[in-house]
Amino acid sequence: MNSTYRPDSMLDLTFERIVDVPKEFIWRAWTKPEHLKPWFCPLPWTTIDCEIDLRPGGIFRTVMRSPEGQEFPGTGCYLEVVENEKLTWTNALLPGFRPAPAIHEGSVDFFFTASIQLAAHPGGTRYTATVIHADEAGCKKHAAMGFQEGWGKALDQLVALARKM
Amino acid sequence: MNSTYRPDSMLDLTFERIVDVPKEFIWRAWTKPEHLKPWFCPLPWTTIDCEIDLRPGGIFRTVMRSPEGQEFPGTGCYLEVVENEKLTWTNALLPGFRPAPAIHEGSVDFFFTASIQLAAHPGGTRYTATVIHADEAGCKKHAAMGFQEGWGKALDQLVALARKM
Repeated sequence: MNSTYRPDSMLDLTFERIVDVPKEFIWRAWTKPEHLKPWFCPLPWTTIDCEIDLRPGGIFRTVMRSPEGQEFPGTGCYLEVVENEKLTWTNALLPGFRPAPAIHEGSVDFFFTASIQLAAHPGGTRYTATVIHADEAGCKKHAAMGFQEGWGKALDQLVALARKM
Repeated sequence: MNSTYRPDSMLDLTFERIVDVPKEFIWRAWTKPEHLKPWFCPLPWTTIDCEIDLRPGGIFRTVMRSPEGQEFPGTGCYLEVVENEKLTWTNALLPGFRPAPAIHEGSVDFFFTASIQLAAHPGGTRYTATVIHADEAGCKKHAAMGFQEGWGKALDQLVALARKM
């Protein structure tokens, strides 16, 4: 997360793990659509589309599909892009930094800003994710959707792909 | 505005003028609280407080006071800081890129992202402001608040200060 970030345990979710995968592999897995789609959603969910314009203000769009076939599109933009180190994006701003429409029926459930940080570690890479929200309701909703388990399973899928390479 | 920006005449407000003031003076007037406060609000409104942390994710906070003494605080964060060239900020994200709480009674009226661009010009500086919104309602509200007139008068005040130096 950015150095201006002030943690708030009521508003923030964090995920951290040491993984035996080089930073550069994880960076690629997060920044190239063809590398992101295979691991980004915990199976049996899938990621059926992904668009990445890797620069501040550039689009980050994914479409997730549930096992029942329902599609969940999500669009935001990048805020910070530091190769192999840090990737920050938000769904509160659309591409070009345009504010996203207010939350309403059928739209996203809550706004968040997420940041992945990668640091070299004797065991491979220290992988840290920080996801921050505007209010407790949004944070709780995100936690209840299975944030910890979901990010853990997705990372397992990423690591399994790395081992196949 | 960022190169990822896609203009939308229904959602965007723009202001452009050539001013006989060096770029560096305008940059300072926008980025140092003590230089911003004297010109930022068209008199008889005043800017009674200002906080600036000039880096992406850093706070940009002002408090404007109406002639009747009512105070209007506004807080956001910077997105792009390119010295003497471009300054972009939004009130949709708070410092540290945290999403701002949803619009409600007593809060901001609408979210926007604003960008000032400064370019050298034979007449001094080409001063361009672009302010983008999520929806037509927000854009219309901003226009009806006197966007063009307000930005024009504020810039007049900035130019008058430059002439005094």
